[in-house]
Amino acid sequence: MPKTTAAWREPGEYTKNLVQAALLRCGRYAIPMITSRAEVSVRYAETDMMGVVYHGSYLPWLEIGRTALLKEHGLPYRQLEAEGFFLPVLEVGLRYLKPARYDDTVTITTTLREKPTLRIRMEYELHRGEELIATGSTLHAFIDKAGRPVRPPPAFAEVMGRLFA
Amino acid sequence: MPKTTAAWREPGEYTKNLVQAALLRCGRYAIPMITSRAEVSVRYAETDMMGVVYHGSYLPWLEIGRTALLKEHGLPYRQLEAEGFFLPVLEVGLRYLKPARYDDTVTITTTLREKPTLRIRMEYELHRGEELIATGSTLHAFIDKAGRPVRPPPAFAEVMGRLFA
Amino acid sequence: MPKTTAAWREPGEYTKNLVQAALLRCGRYAIPMITSRAEVSVRYAETDMMGVVYHGSYLPWLEIGRTALLKEHGLPYRQLEAEGFFLPVLEVGLRYLKPARYDDTVTITTTLREKPTLRIRMEYELHRGEELIATGSTLHAFIDKAGRPVRPPPAFAEVMGRLFA
Amino acid sequence: MPKTTAAWREPGEYTKNLVQAALLRCGRYAIPMITSRAEVSVRYAETDMMGVVYHGSYLPWLEIGRTALLKEHGLPYRQLEAEGFFLPVLEVGLRYLKPARYDDTVTITTTLREKPTLRIRMEYELHRGEELIATGSTLHAFIDKAGRPVRPPPAFAEVMGRLFA
Repeated sequence: MPKTTAAWREPGEYTKNLVQAALLRCGRYAIPMITSRAEVSVRYAETDMMGVVYHGSYLPWLEIGRTALLKEHGLPYRQLEAEGFFLPVLEVGLRYLKPARYDDTVTITTTLREKPTLRIRMEYELHRGEELIATGSTLHAFIDKAGRPVRPPPAFAEVMGRLFA
Repeated sequence: MPKTTAAWREPGEYTKNLVQAALLRCGRYAIPMITSRAEVSVRYAETDMMGVVYHGSYLPWLEIGRTALLKEHGLPYRQLEAEGFFLPVLEVGLRYLKPARYDDTVTITTTLREKPTLRIRMEYELHRGEELIATGSTLHAFIDKAGRPVRPPPAFAEVMGRLFA
Repeated sequence: MPKTTAAWREPGEYTKNLVQAALLRCGRYAIPMITSRAEVSVRYAETDMMGVVYHGSYLPWLEIGRTALLKEHGLPYRQLEAEGFFLPVLEVGLRYLKPARYDDTVTITTTLREKPTLRIRMEYELHRGEELIATGSTLHAFIDKAGRPVRPPPAFAEVMGRLFA
Repeated sequence: MPKTTAAWREPGEYTKNLVQAALLRCGRYAIPMITSRAEVSVRYAETDMMGVVYHGSYLPWLEIGRTALLKEHGLPYRQLEAEGFFLPVLEVGLRYLKPARYDDTVTITTTLREKPTLRIRMEYELHRGEELIATGSTLHAFIDKAGRPVRPPPAFAEVMGRLFA
């Protein structure tokens, strides 16, 4: 965001913004966006009598996806909690497109599309091979041990600042 | 819904609609809407190391809510499946407002706001005493044993037709 | 338990033992033994693709059984933990006799056969109607927040002392 | 076991048995015994409010262990079920020695100590690094789709016959 109107007079910056906005609109612009991949092998315990995976069994998979993303960037969730920072789920949404089945290998692609501030939104795509079988999102905020909302831990803020620079 | 403009000339109907709209807006008008209440006592198994209920543990509760609603109207889900009709979850959304805790009594209020056609939307409110702790919704459609979308079973259509007459 | 010493003087001590053993054998002798009943309605989430209840889903039921027993005797587990006493499972054993099914009502009968000292053994029988569908047992010991073995909380010891007097 | 002294005269067989028995007794004899290793990374969903893994969460791990063993020997459980053979759990026993924790890597060692006949017993050891944290066993028998006990599928019998030759 330009903070001075002077910015508008520099054609380069202005043009860049325009182009960026246009490209964003048609989905071809590479905005900074953090993505991580994890895999699970579907457990028998995760199925139900419909013969496919129980819809609630997908939630631990999303969790595996986002903690893999955090770990890859040097932020193991285990350590965040050890330092007194908890990241509960405030909202979750899931769309089931194709049933997952026992013994399937499911790839969880987790994406952080915006620099997290107080709220952190994660998006998920679940694939079996090439086939997209579910999409979802979760919303989070940091709290302390007493359950009070807190600012993200410094290490987290630092990593995100760098990733979304 | 009046389909002819003639409806507008009949003061009664017109006034009724106006009043209905006004009451709807302030939430006091009784539109046909099916609601059911069920209770769960929070299990230790449903908690996680954050000391509260794991966010995924709410999904079986919603299921208890909607199957209670169906059973109250003479449609036990067990029997629907026995007759070859399955009602998988196509979408789920949940907002967590306050953490549920071990040994809490949680009341699940399930609402069917619109007459279900091919798609069935259920809405949920979870309370601990007077306190609203979570809201959610699920979307469903009937499928057969082979996983193909099918029309709702006749008994289901009949009950819904009567409830939303 | 004989309440008068007279009982012991009657030659029949030997006879009494014989009778006691006989009655025990035919299940009609009342040894001090604490029993509690709880009910669960089988959840869809508890089934697996074999079409019946997943074998791991029985463990939360045993937990419901033993916490019901404790609560009935004025020892809600929630409060034990609030006072810093935890009762983890050291051992569990289960025999599955008949499959439990979705929407079944399962009665959990929990029995404390011996006065618990440092170790607490609970035994379980699961019925669907009159039919015994599973049996099990768990072994427990109290630990403190740091995970160290501790003596049972005074309230617990007092209740058990009274029950097994 | 030779029941007649005649056996003494057949050096080969007799010596073999003696040596085998002696070695078995001191635990150094390599009896045919099938072992498989699998790993799980502990999920947040598997913990409870005691801050460690919920005791019921170990059961899906044992399942991962035994299905890995079967798969390694060309018997994917998915296919056994596809061919109409189901392998329910008849008994389970677990001893918890040390608590498993979130994000731990747990190695499941599954052992088939005897050639399975109608009953199949699997034994388990769970380690975190070098530390043994739990042991367990399960008992199984094959059933058909209708729940009736059946002989193991031919492929299974053939593999076991070869492994325990």
